[in-house]
Amino acid sequence: MARRESILTGPGSQALIVDLIRSSGPISRTELTAATGLTQPSISNIVRRLIDDGIVRETGRTPSQGGKPRTLLEINARARYGIGVQLGFESITIVATDVRGGVVGRQLVDGAGAGQPDETAERIVELYRAFLSGLGLDAASVAGVAVVTPGPIALAEGAILAAPSLPLWDGYPLRDVLADALGVPVIIGNDAAAATIGEFWSRQVSRNEAFACVYLGTGIGAGVVLDGALLRGASSNAGELGHVTIQIDGEPCYCGNQGCLERYAAPGPTIAAARAARDDLDDVNLTFDPASLSRDFDQLARAAVGGQTVAAELLQRSADQIAAATVTLANLFDLERIVLAGPGMAVAGSVYARAIRERLERSFFARNAHSIAVELSSNPRDAAAIGAAALVLQGSIAPGHGPSLIPAA
Amino acid sequence: MARRESILTGPGSQALIVDLIRSSGPISRTELTAATGLTQPSISNIVRRLIDDGIVRETGRTPSQGGKPRTLLEINARARYGIGVQLGFESITIVATDVRGGVVGRQLVDGAGAGQPDETAERIVELYRAFLSGLGLDAASVAGVAVVTPGPIALAEGAILAAPSLPLWDGYPLRDVLADALGVPVIIGNDAAAATIGEFWSRQVSRNEAFACVYLGTGIGAGVVLDGALLRGASSNAGELGHVTIQIDGEPCYCGNQGCLERYAAPGPTIAAARAARDDLDDVNLTFDPASLSRDFDQLARAAVGGQTVAAELLQRSADQIAAATVTLANLFDLERIVLAGPGMAVAGSVYARAIRERLERSFFARNAHSIAVELSSNPRDAAAIGAAALVLQGSIAPGHGPSLIPAA
Repeated sequence: MARRESILTGPGSQALIVDLIRSSGPISRTELTAATGLTQPSISNIVRRLIDDGIVRETGRTPSQGGKPRTLLEINARARYGIGVQLGFESITIVATDVRGGVVGRQLVDGAGAGQPDETAERIVELYRAFLSGLGLDAASVAGVAVVTPGPIALAEGAILAAPSLPLWDGYPLRDVLADALGVPVIIGNDAAAATIGEFWSRQVSRNEAFACVYLGTGIGAGVVLDGALLRGASSNAGELGHVTIQIDGEPCYCGNQGCLERYAAPGPTIAAARAARDDLDDVNLTFDPASLSRDFDQLARAAVGGQTVAAELLQRSADQIAAATVTLANLFDLERIVLAGPGMAVAGSVYARAIRERLERSFFARNAHSIAVELSSNPRDAAAIGAAALVLQGSIAPGHGPSLIPAA
Repeated sequence: MARRESILTGPGSQALIVDLIRSSGPISRTELTAATGLTQPSISNIVRRLIDDGIVRETGRTPSQGGKPRTLLEINARARYGIGVQLGFESITIVATDVRGGVVGRQLVDGAGAGQPDETAERIVELYRAFLSGLGLDAASVAGVAVVTPGPIALAEGAILAAPSLPLWDGYPLRDVLADALGVPVIIGNDAAAATIGEFWSRQVSRNEAFACVYLGTGIGAGVVLDGALLRGASSNAGELGHVTIQIDGEPCYCGNQGCLERYAAPGPTIAAARAARDDLDDVNLTFDPASLSRDFDQLARAAVGGQTVAAELLQRSADQIAAATVTLANLFDLERIVLAGPGMAVAGSVYARAIRERLERSFFARNAHSIAVELSSNPRDAAAIGAAALVLQGSIAPGHGPSLIPAA
């Protein structure tokens, strides 16, 4: 794209310094000056601010080699924590990440299910307090909480809209309820978008790269990062990969469209197909209980990876369908890198990665111009919660810099 | 999206002033100061430069209302011209636009057909010279020439890649051949992208709007403008709407993919279907000559619009297919406005617009969050050539500002 924001000036410089100290281990101010092209006074000012904030600390000196020894700087990883909460029908996951991006704690409890939003919000508040106390984290060190859910979000209102798996939550002002109870900044976001941002950061993807994350949860979503910014579209509803038509005039979808990818390839329809073929799957332990959809999907994936023929066929069908829609995504955005994340990729990721790679190799429109990498998240199940936690943390270190769930004003 | 370029500073201010003078008719420097928030000295400097360049001229004074009368400024529309060339298999169209964006001339000659690129390039040179001389345009007033074609482009090399309708042109260095012969700057671009830029400008679309153009030529393409910049992706091959799968594991496409929109809904397959149904179309004058595909498609569209049942069914099928893929485009980009352009929309545009509107109304994922407008180009047949001409002109008035076919370095 045509426009580039200079990474060396403006609000990005603080984030750049943090990134450099984080990635280059102990480093001196002089080396930072050389690495960034910023002036010595600028480096000194930024470093002083970071030290005052506790994010960076001095850690000894370079061995003297004749010249004046230099003070080294390192990240104070435990200066601040981001908390990410992944709110789903079946489970709620909370994670904490430190300034280095490392996960310092993770806890999983029962999901929202069919419970009232108020009760679930209260459970989140309790979970948060127990989680901090269990980890021995000071509440004052928490930069903020990001709660991510499937489905659309009303960003300005901090509310969840009508996610098909969480219908009771439509319009519920979760952000304000939690912020009041917790006394820390709270943001609400989409799970696929949060996972996309988390994967973009943790992989240190270049800002010039056309990057996407395909997210397999209860539904199917995607996030796209162009020029270092998460693509939002008109109403932060961009990336609806689950509602790409793969079969014209096919099965009707709850969204109003027909032949949507999600209607065929998501865990729900895949387990429904397994139920229809359950006589051939009697060695696979499936409950067919809607409240255990993810567990059933994991079981099916385990059987498939283990060589159970019918399970493998069912999973392959889903993978081929997601692969076809991913080619569409790649052709419309001319992508260079795709990461697969989400709970659905935890066991079955290799099957999906292979199907997507194979189809891109023979079908990607620009394949003669450039290659396209397909990678698996290193933690597909918690990718959205980790992305959410990294997001609030990054927002507190360098507001306004890098991809964010919240559009700039 | 997160990043915004201020339109009030930097290289954009000259373009902004030109836009304001163009849209607000005769206007004073004081009014420009009020409208832009720029300082009086800045306005004076920019206006002086524009007057020196001949793009703006003074045109009398405001009637005295007590205060000091003010000198008015207007665009000198004929100061400079952009030349756009639409190079296709069946026809080559050349247009000239003035600084106001008005089309001052248009000429159409035989297309590239199966001829050698060198011969066709020579015909373009002759066409250009005859065209300028016929219009009485001074070669010195030409800002540049943009040649647009279907299919992929090697931007850096200024060459056409393997467009399916122009296979002989693969790698032909058209930009350099023409620039040498014509002695003016030449750029090469994709027709759908040029039409997108042209429609974005001529409609004065807001930079905040998520905007796309669906282009129906021999094939089917699209362009997307986000934050005022044309989306390119990794290799300027973004927007390949023709190669979105609408039928999983459907008909194989030349591109390597299966079930591509283009394979079903483009003029070629539509006329092939008409040939199969020709007994029911004997009142429609179709040649079934591949060299007259566009003419046949226009004939079929005329019959459809005129109420011929079988023609209407054939066109409706194509329109429904393009509509399904357009919903995919809208869902992935969360679009707000879609313009339909390209020769295929010249006669049949209303059929396509209706089908797309209807399907978006019931299927667009974010339809409860915001509306999405579907509009027809006011000149669908020449939209790419006009966009190309506007593009070179804009590039000469305000380099580096606004959507461009050429990515910034």
